[in-house]
Amino acid sequence: MNERVAIVGGTGAIGLALATRLAAAGCEVVIGSRDAAKAAEAAAGIGNPAVSGVSNSEAAAAAEVVFLCVPFSSQAGTIKQIAESLAEGTILVDTTVPLATNVGGKPTRTLGVPDGSAGQQAQALVPKGVTVVSGLHTVSAVLLANVEHDLDEDTLLCSNDRDAIARVAKIVELVPGLRAVDAGRLEIAKIAEQMTALMISMNIRHKAHTGVRITGL
Amino acid sequence: MNERVAIVGGTGAIGLALATRLAAAGCEVVIGSRDAAKAAEAAAGIGNPAVSGVSNSEAAAAAEVVFLCVPFSSQAGTIKQIAESLAEGTILVDTTVPLATNVGGKPTRTLGVPDGSAGQQAQALVPKGVTVVSGLHTVSAVLLANVEHDLDEDTLLCSNDRDAIARVAKIVELVPGLRAVDAGRLEIAKIAEQMTALMISMNIRHKAHTGVRITGL
Repeated sequence: MNERVAIVGGTGAIGLALATRLAAAGCEVVIGSRDAAKAAEAAAGIGNPAVSGVSNSEAAAAAEVVFLCVPFSSQAGTIKQIAESLAEGTILVDTTVPLATNVGGKPTRTLGVPDGSAGQQAQALVPKGVTVVSGLHTVSAVLLANVEHDLDEDTLLCSNDRDAIARVAKIVELVPGLRAVDAGRLEIAKIAEQMTALMISMNIRHKAHTGVRITGL
Repeated sequence: MNERVAIVGGTGAIGLALATRLAAAGCEVVIGSRDAAKAAEAAAGIGNPAVSGVSNSEAAAAAEVVFLCVPFSSQAGTIKQIAESLAEGTILVDTTVPLATNVGGKPTRTLGVPDGSAGQQAQALVPKGVTVVSGLHTVSAVLLANVEHDLDEDTLLCSNDRDAIARVAKIVELVPGLRAVDAGRLEIAKIAEQMTALMISMNIRHKAHTGVRITGL
């Protein structure tokens, strides 16, 4: 059994796919949702006894590494909701992307975020002692959900705490074919987040599910 | 012999490396510089008779595909200088990146460009009938210059004219190991350009020369 991880917003496409993959890899996974019953139902649907479903706040309190898998439009509200449940030392993995779709715009465009990036906004909102790692932006939920196939891509992790990046890297690399790359400080998340819009542009042009690999490492 | 290409700003690191690679692949390459004598000297230094050196304006008039390889801080001035020499139907490949270094800032940060991106700024500055393709942002000049080694990366090409992308793709793919990916319309160049700052961040963290590959295509 690997460590226990929590997924706030775990009933969405990316959260559910991540829960499935991490449970398959031997993690105990606690899925959170605004509605605990919905989370329990989603957890049961995965069909792996290592996955349980609770409220977002309960999930946030249940693990040292908590993945935040809500849409960007719900990011600030959700962080405020779970803030009291995040123990000092918790790592919050912000996967949100400020796509223009959050305000009804095009998926190939991103919003300007006053803090610089969604990741930096998350860091500004969490309680002192909680470290934000930004990641998983460019990983397709469709491919992540397809457990029959290994991924063939990297995910860029950004944080001001390199030890936190290393810890999150170990977890996400439990997904077959997914490599984590330490991309730099949290301000670099601005670029990693925008790459989601780039991938969507390429997906439209090429009718594909693209991923990114960093060469030369 | 492949087609003739021109490289405005061809005496800089990326321009010179590109000239060397394309000449080795069988192109006739016309290098431009503000100082024609300097361009001729640089061309001679490559040691391939397929490379010649002239003024930037002469280079701009010499080929249907013209690579613009000056620093972003010189982009607008150079385009104004060569504008009259760009024939209708010319494709200008803008490789400039609005790194903060252009104004003395960090290489891991980019400037906001009023037109959206350096590529869009170029399109706004060229004469009517000239098409801008934005590309080569994330290709390391060091690796490109090392003709003993194939590259292992993609370059993202953005333009509002897909035929122009296809034409530029054929040229840049003459560089062994370099694949061109149609990344979308010119506004996507904003993201492709920022990825240069991301690569620099990773290069610093990992003491490497990173490149990018798009998977799933």
